[in-house]
Amino acid sequence: MTSARSEPHRATGLVSLVGAGPGDPELLTLKAVRCLSEADVVLYDRLVSEEVLAHCRPGARKMLVGKTGGGKSCRQDDINTLMVLLAGAGNRVVRLKGGDPMVFGRAAEEIAACDAAGIACDVVPGITAALGVAASLKIPLTTREVAHRVQFVTGHSRNGSAPEHDWSALADTDATTVVYMGRSTLPAMIAAMIAAGAAPDLPAAAVFDATRATEIVVTASLAALPEAIESVERSSAPCLVVIGRAVSPLMSGLEGEACAARPGADTTAV
Amino acid sequence: MTSARSEPHRATGLVSLVGAGPGDPELLTLKAVRCLSEADVVLYDRLVSEEVLAHCRPGARKMLVGKTGGGKSCRQDDINTLMVLLAGAGNRVVRLKGGDPMVFGRAAEEIAACDAAGIACDVVPGITAALGVAASLKIPLTTREVAHRVQFVTGHSRNGSAPEHDWSALADTDATTVVYMGRSTLPAMIAAMIAAGAAPDLPAAAVFDATRATEIVVTASLAALPEAIESVERSSAPCLVVIGRAVSPLMSGLEGEACAARPGADTTAV
Repeated sequence: MTSARSEPHRATGLVSLVGAGPGDPELLTLKAVRCLSEADVVLYDRLVSEEVLAHCRPGARKMLVGKTGGGKSCRQDDINTLMVLLAGAGNRVVRLKGGDPMVFGRAAEEIAACDAAGIACDVVPGITAALGVAASLKIPLTTREVAHRVQFVTGHSRNGSAPEHDWSALADTDATTVVYMGRSTLPAMIAAMIAAGAAPDLPAAAVFDATRATEIVVTASLAALPEAIESVERSSAPCLVVIGRAVSPLMSGLEGEACAARPGADTTAV
Repeated sequence: MTSARSEPHRATGLVSLVGAGPGDPELLTLKAVRCLSEADVVLYDRLVSEEVLAHCRPGARKMLVGKTGGGKSCRQDDINTLMVLLAGAGNRVVRLKGGDPMVFGRAAEEIAACDAAGIACDVVPGITAALGVAASLKIPLTTREVAHRVQFVTGHSRNGSAPEHDWSALADTDATTVVYMGRSTLPAMIAAMIAAGAAPDLPAAAVFDATRATEIVVTASLAALPEAIESVERSSAPCLVVIGRAVSPLMSGLEGEACAARPGADTTAV
């Protein structure tokens, strides 16, 4: 079928979509570490740290394919093409993504591209940002008493405006809602939630650089959160917003304590 | 304040709630491995495997505190008391839980017990079962096209009947819904979802022993799923149900392939 080539692992070209976790490099899984140590090429997002990339074997090619702060990013189609070409040439390719590949990670497009090209593909899960935040702030996302459902939604849409959501589902006070990538659309999203019945005084927290030494937490009521984070100068930091009664432990004068585990972390309550 | 005692680490008694991940021992985080290697006592749930416990240091005390299949379980209050007593005596205690501690893990009660006793406590996240299943079956839980929200709910309630939920939120076809611990209440939950507007032919999958070599996947339409899993003889295996268009890739004659990555795994489509 194909002529002989000199690329490594010709018979075993493979794409692994690997979750790098929320930031803290100790939150990589053992399986992710093994995949990185076996990869010929690692295509990584900008949120992946140097400490994580240090698990790559010496000689592995490391290529940044994600957005850089304010700069250009590779188009998804170009990433797919590159991934398929490299694996087709026999390389073990790791596509390394912040958090978990299957939660707001564009994995569907990348799996489809591999399938269409006949390239073997597997997925290694990662700690998604919501779980990293819950652990870092010690706020369970579900409880028997006040939160029977937890939901993750994106604040990001193709045209930059707030995405369409089932707003009444987001307004349910028995749920914990986590908004990914929601900083710019937060005012519109919160207005829609409140219009759908969410209590304006529901506890809420915005977390920047979660699980990193640079983590910042801002707590406020749902209605006050957009204004409360206006002054946070972290335009390129990942921002996660947690809304619901699960956040209450951070609101009772314990804000400082909630962050005590992360030296250098800032907490602001409004 | 206290008399001298001979227990180890008197000054540094600590409780760490640690996620053991969904089953595959390679899905432990580096941080969880470190915590296990430093622990004096490990209180573990029944879903935690021998391979995971093998990371404990020689000489560490390992105590099963979770339910055994059909057998007795420790009461939550007793677990809290034990945890606090052991840490109060200066031990480094790991409370090791399947999945992630902050998602349906009773973490709120354990954190509150530590706080009330003045015992330091931290949390190490784990790969929650939904993320393990998504990776194992290669089904992204969110996509740009068909799933803008993912929600986790419990099928478990205190009295054994189906819990109360916002059924219209669960019926939203733009969401992926994952039901934890739902095998026994699944017929009632699905009936309530369909009554709230969920399409009876929505794709659904039940996954037993996810990410383990013994993993079984059963796919069916939402309405047909309860009957489809009746014959599965895994009364003590963890069961996770995924509902929504995100499951579609498993329904198009690709069922066998979806599990190809796990030798020995069974897949049944109905």
